[in-house]
Amino acid sequence: MPRSDHPAERSKDQLRDQKRNDILNAAKKLFRKFGVKKTTMRDIAAEAGLAVGTLYLYFENRDDVVLACAEAFEQIHKDQAINAVEGEGDVATRLKEYILTRFRAAAETRTSDSHVAEIAREVVRVRPTRLQDESKIMQETILKLYAQGAEASQFHIAEPQRTMMVFLYSIAWFFPIEKSEFIPEPEEAALVNVLDWFIETWTK
Amino acid sequence: MPRSDHPAERSKDQLRDQKRNDILNAAKKLFRKFGVKKTTMRDIAAEAGLAVGTLYLYFENRDDVVLACAEAFEQIHKDQAINAVEGEGDVATRLKEYILTRFRAAAETRTSDSHVAEIAREVVRVRPTRLQDESKIMQETILKLYAQGAEASQFHIAEPQRTMMVFLYSIAWFFPIEKSEFIPEPEEAALVNVLDWFIETWTK
Repeated sequence: MPRSDHPAERSKDQLRDQKRNDILNAAKKLFRKFGVKKTTMRDIAAEAGLAVGTLYLYFENRDDVVLACAEAFEQIHKDQAINAVEGEGDVATRLKEYILTRFRAAAETRTSDSHVAEIAREVVRVRPTRLQDESKIMQETILKLYAQGAEASQFHIAEPQRTMMVFLYSIAWFFPIEKSEFIPEPEEAALVNVLDWFIETWTK
Repeated sequence: MPRSDHPAERSKDQLRDQKRNDILNAAKKLFRKFGVKKTTMRDIAAEAGLAVGTLYLYFENRDDVVLACAEAFEQIHKDQAINAVEGEGDVATRLKEYILTRFRAAAETRTSDSHVAEIAREVVRVRPTRLQDESKIMQETILKLYAQGAEASQFHIAEPQRTMMVFLYSIAWFFPIEKSEFIPEPEEAALVNVLDWFIETWTK
C-alpha cells in the first residue's frame, strides 16, 4: 500500500509506526523476562501503555507479535548485510566485521534472554524457515563479498559456492542457539583467528 | 603392578579383567537406559550377574564406575588415534578416516543414549578435564599426521599449530554433545565436504 503524501496522513503513518515499534519493544522485553507463553496480549498492552483494544488493531494475536519480533530481528541482519556489501573500504575487513557483528548479536541474544530456548522454539513454530532464512542472508552476503574481492583481485577463490559453504560450517560452532552447560561460550578471539586464517587462504 | 607370569596367576588376571569388563558393560547399559543417578551399585551387580559384595571388590562406588566407563571410552579414542598415526596408506585418507570415525562415535552416543546430557554431566563431574583430554588427543593426532604429510611432501602447511586449531574449530559444529531441538543432526556428507576442502588446501 503506497502511503499518502498528505501531511496529516503522513504524520498518522508515523504515529502508527511509532506505536507498532513501542509494542514490539514492550513485547521483546516481556518475552525475555518471562518467556513467550507466560506473556499475554494484556501484559504487552500494559507494558506499551496502550489499551488492549488498541493492541488488537496492530496485532491479531500473540503469534502475530512473535512473528513481527522475528521479522524485526531479521531486518537488523539485512541492514548489516547491506552495510557489509555497500560499505566503504577493504572487502576482507568488511567481511570480517560482518561476521563479528553477527557473532556479537548472537552472543547478546544468548546471554540476555533467560528464556532463549522457549523464544527460539516459539519463533520457529510461527516461522518454521527462520533459521534457513538467516542462513540464506549470510550465504548471499558472503558470495557478494567474494565477488567484490575477486573483482578487486584481492580474493582468489576457485569455487566460491563450495568455499562459502565450508566457511559457514567452519564458523557455525561460534553461533550456538543456546548456552551449553558443558562447553564455555565461544570466544571472539578464537573466531577472529579462524576468520583471519580463511581470509589469508583466500588472498593467497 | 607387573602381572605374574605364573599360569594360574595369569588366568586369575584374565578372569578379573573379564569380570571388570562385564561390570562396565552392564553399567553402560543401565546408564544409557535409566541414567546415572537412577542406577545403583545393586542394579549394576544384578545386571552383571554378580553379588553386590563382589562388585565392591572392583569399584568403590558408582562414581568410580562412571570414571572407569569414561576411561574405557577414551581408550577407544586412543586406539583410533594410534591406528590413524601408525596405519598404512595415504596420510590424507588416514586423517579423513580418523575424523569420520570420531564423528560416527559421537553421533552414535548422541542417538543411543536417552540420558546423554545427564551422563555427560556426571562424567564431567567425576572427571572435569574429560572434554579437554579428548581435544588434546585429537590435537596431537592431527599434528602427527601433518608431520607425516609434510615428510611425504604431501601436505604444505606453513603453520601447523595454527592450522590445526582452525581445523578443529571448523569441524567442531559436527560434534555437538547433545541433540539440538532446533538444528537437525549434522550430516556426514557435509563433514566430508569440509574435510575434502581442507585436505585440498593442505595438499596445494
